[in-house]
Amino acid sequence: MEHIDKLSGTFDSKKETKAQKSEVSPAVIRRLPRYHRYLGELLRAERYRISSGELSEIMGVTASQIRQDLNCFGGFGQQGYGYNIKYLYGKISELLGVVEGYRAVIVGAGNLGKALAQTHMFERRGVTRVALFDVNHEVIGTEINSMPVLDVRDLGDFCRENDIQLGVLTVPKDAAKEVAEVMAKSGVRGILNFANMELTLDEPDVIIENVHLGDYLMKLCYEMKRSREDREK
Amino acid sequence: MEHIDKLSGTFDSKKETKAQKSEVSPAVIRRLPRYHRYLGELLRAERYRISSGELSEIMGVTASQIRQDLNCFGGFGQQGYGYNIKYLYGKISELLGVVEGYRAVIVGAGNLGKALAQTHMFERRGVTRVALFDVNHEVIGTEINSMPVLDVRDLGDFCRENDIQLGVLTVPKDAAKEVAEVMAKSGVRGILNFANMELTLDEPDVIIENVHLGDYLMKLCYEMKRSREDREK
Repeated sequence: MEHIDKLSGTFDSKKETKAQKSEVSPAVIRRLPRYHRYLGELLRAERYRISSGELSEIMGVTASQIRQDLNCFGGFGQQGYGYNIKYLYGKISELLGVVEGYRAVIVGAGNLGKALAQTHMFERRGVTRVALFDVNHEVIGTEINSMPVLDVRDLGDFCRENDIQLGVLTVPKDAAKEVAEVMAKSGVRGILNFANMELTLDEPDVIIENVHLGDYLMKLCYEMKRSREDREK
Repeated sequence: MEHIDKLSGTFDSKKETKAQKSEVSPAVIRRLPRYHRYLGELLRAERYRISSGELSEIMGVTASQIRQDLNCFGGFGQQGYGYNIKYLYGKISELLGVVEGYRAVIVGAGNLGKALAQTHMFERRGVTRVALFDVNHEVIGTEINSMPVLDVRDLGDFCRENDIQLGVLTVPKDAAKEVAEVMAKSGVRGILNFANMELTLDEPDVIIENVHLGDYLMKLCYEMKRSREDREK
């Protein structure tokens, strides 16, 4: 029983002690959003059950990897019967915080800000975008995807008054820290930073996720180089 | 001697046998772009030497991790003297394929395509953007960051005639595969895919790097949830 509790409780941090917490493998955490994405697509295609073998084929990882990753949340898979997609999707959504219903603002209404205002990635992860902010008076007062673009000077007040927990930064590198500090002081608890710099804050309770798109380009160039060298051998 | 060769040759695939190749740790590959980014910033700030201790502090990883990561490329670091930033940056650039000088097109001139046409991330990684492509006649014929926006029907011919090796996809999900196939048949050897789907091609020589921005959002939500639960304990 204790063993089962430990397994199914791996991602249930309410039950966790500090010592247990560190047992959650970052590799599993990294892989979970991908499961969430694939399971979401299966659900939208009206699939309700899937075997670890088929999931393995779609996702390009081994079936044993899948069983290892998913079984640590409890016994969703039954031999010869497969996973219940909806249940698993719901469980992973819960574990990942999708059901928290965070409210977000996007700061920076340039091309990237506009692109992010228009993707489906937010609602699929339970995040509601409420408004955009910018310094440019040509865009302030306009609407993007039915959201108002507001003056960045009103950012702090807006976050407090509208219970904003999540901020997306697409501002220039030099402005990122200042904007992030305003948000952190106004109740924002998580920042998704596209400013292409390693953002740090003195507020330990604010989680920062730095996105570096250039790192993908770099990895691609590396793999292309290796592939060419292999062909030339 | 054999031992030294093996260490310094880890990323030198010309010397590698198939067996050795698999020894390159994906974790090290993943970390290299980050070193490249930090070293590039130090160079732009006109710094020329750095100790593993200082680099460790800036990058937020342990000094022993840094020594472990960087020493496998050969003995750049000297006790008490630090790393030669320019040499290390050049070496990592070479290892990562930055010096290959790839030529790229961006397919999809919407908000994300425009944002990518304007970032510095390409030139910093040795990639030259040559043109954008779209289906929309309102943008075809315009220029973005001094690059022409061309008709996607001319994509194949353009890639062949202009020696394009790298394609960036910011098209809708449903169009991604078709566009990727045109590029693959026209000499493109690497695709950076922002279409938010797992792109696969039958051409084994074409490297595909799928970017999923939503996964960052998901990870952030997860960490925010955990952090809240910790505070509530």
